[in-house]
Amino acid sequence: MADRPLVDKTAERLMAFILDNGYEVGQKLPNEYDLSEALGAGRSTVREAVRSLVARNILEVRQGSGTYISSKRGVVEDPFGFAFVKDRIKLTTDLFELRYLLEPRIAERAAQFGKEEDIQRLEQIAIEIEEALAADDPKHLELDVQFHSLLAEMSGNVAVKSLIPVINESIQIINEDYTNRRMKQSSIEAHRNILKAIQSRHPIAAYDSMLSHILTVRQTVLNDWYEKDIDIQGLPKSK
Amino acid sequence: MADRPLVDKTAERLMAFILDNGYEVGQKLPNEYDLSEALGAGRSTVREAVRSLVARNILEVRQGSGTYISSKRGVVEDPFGFAFVKDRIKLTTDLFELRYLLEPRIAERAAQFGKEEDIQRLEQIAIEIEEALAADDPKHLELDVQFHSLLAEMSGNVAVKSLIPVINESIQIINEDYTNRRMKQSSIEAHRNILKAIQSRHPIAAYDSMLSHILTVRQTVLNDWYEKDIDIQGLPKSK
Repeated sequence: MADRPLVDKTAERLMAFILDNGYEVGQKLPNEYDLSEALGAGRSTVREAVRSLVARNILEVRQGSGTYISSKRGVVEDPFGFAFVKDRIKLTTDLFELRYLLEPRIAERAAQFGKEEDIQRLEQIAIEIEEALAADDPKHLELDVQFHSLLAEMSGNVAVKSLIPVINESIQIINEDYTNRRMKQSSIEAHRNILKAIQSRHPIAAYDSMLSHILTVRQTVLNDWYEKDIDIQGLPKSK
Repeated sequence: MADRPLVDKTAERLMAFILDNGYEVGQKLPNEYDLSEALGAGRSTVREAVRSLVARNILEVRQGSGTYISSKRGVVEDPFGFAFVKDRIKLTTDLFELRYLLEPRIAERAAQFGKEEDIQRLEQIAIEIEEALAADDPKHLELDVQFHSLLAEMSGNVAVKSLIPVINESIQIINEDYTNRRMKQSSIEAHRNILKAIQSRHPIAAYDSMLSHILTVRQTVLNDWYEKDIDIQGLPKSK
């Protein structure tokens, strides 16, 4: 194994090099030899540094072509190590609390600031969700993430835009069991309400319909747990 | 460079291996030879897979000793690629909006669920912040992150616990300019108010004092921009 601190330092320098030179997604980096010169590090250290930025989804290596800025823009899979949280039920509850705090405002902003072409895409996704649910196609979960991620993008908040997909994907992974028939119907109506509010450029209605959607899903999950007699209030035990 | 898809698949299998076997922070993984057997992959592929989990802060390699589960629990630096966002002022505003949405509820939960020993730690940090500010020691920024991160931990929401330090560290990096004298005094008072509310086990007062704190800081930053005549409302331009 290589000298880790040196590799980390070189990776940091490489990151600064990328930012200082204004590299954009899809652009090609200089070759190993030139990078080695620019960063003042040996070629094997540079190779390790590149690998470390590949693992962080900042760079991607195309076989036989070179090293490029990744379209994943440095957003890594499971960046918070949610996979390490053992109590999956508690994690689901806690993630839903985050959505409850963030998503109504996101819908509100999407209604105020969203571009017309994005509203049309949103409608398209809503239609596809309904079709997938009608056909019992599990694709509806992925489409649901798309719906909420697009809203986050339309909100115009760059931080939220990165956050929401991570939160929603985590929930989908945990949550595949909870899509029973009643929940499907309620989910279709909820998405229609959110869409209508945004199409009408009605921020308050968008806020309220999203709040109502999240609360309904949260309650459905909780009811399921009550039925299975799982001891969970979504809250830590008192000391 | 190695066969990337194969390495990624092996990294995924290695991750599943770690979770299935219940490895805890600080525990040592089997050696490369045994891992290669367990994962059904060649040793050089396993080595690459290990590197990729090291880069994601899931594993750490100790020279001459072996591979261990990292205490960083898979939380990577800048997981959302905020370093890639060019408009730093917009990013700051957007991060403050996140704090405004999340932190009042966090303080509320900390007042209701926080452990006594954590409240004592919180008081200690608040005292150290005052000392650092009095001595013009830039350490107060790091202590401020500690204060808010401890609150997130006390909230008992496992998702928030991972999120808040990332948000706050991002802000500190951007934000070092904004600590003028008036802001210092207001920040001391705000931390005292939050602390008092939590010590009194008063969730509503904790919510309100945190909301007030975030709004004050947000306004100070905005005023600074107005003075410098920077065109920013913290909102995306209308279409």
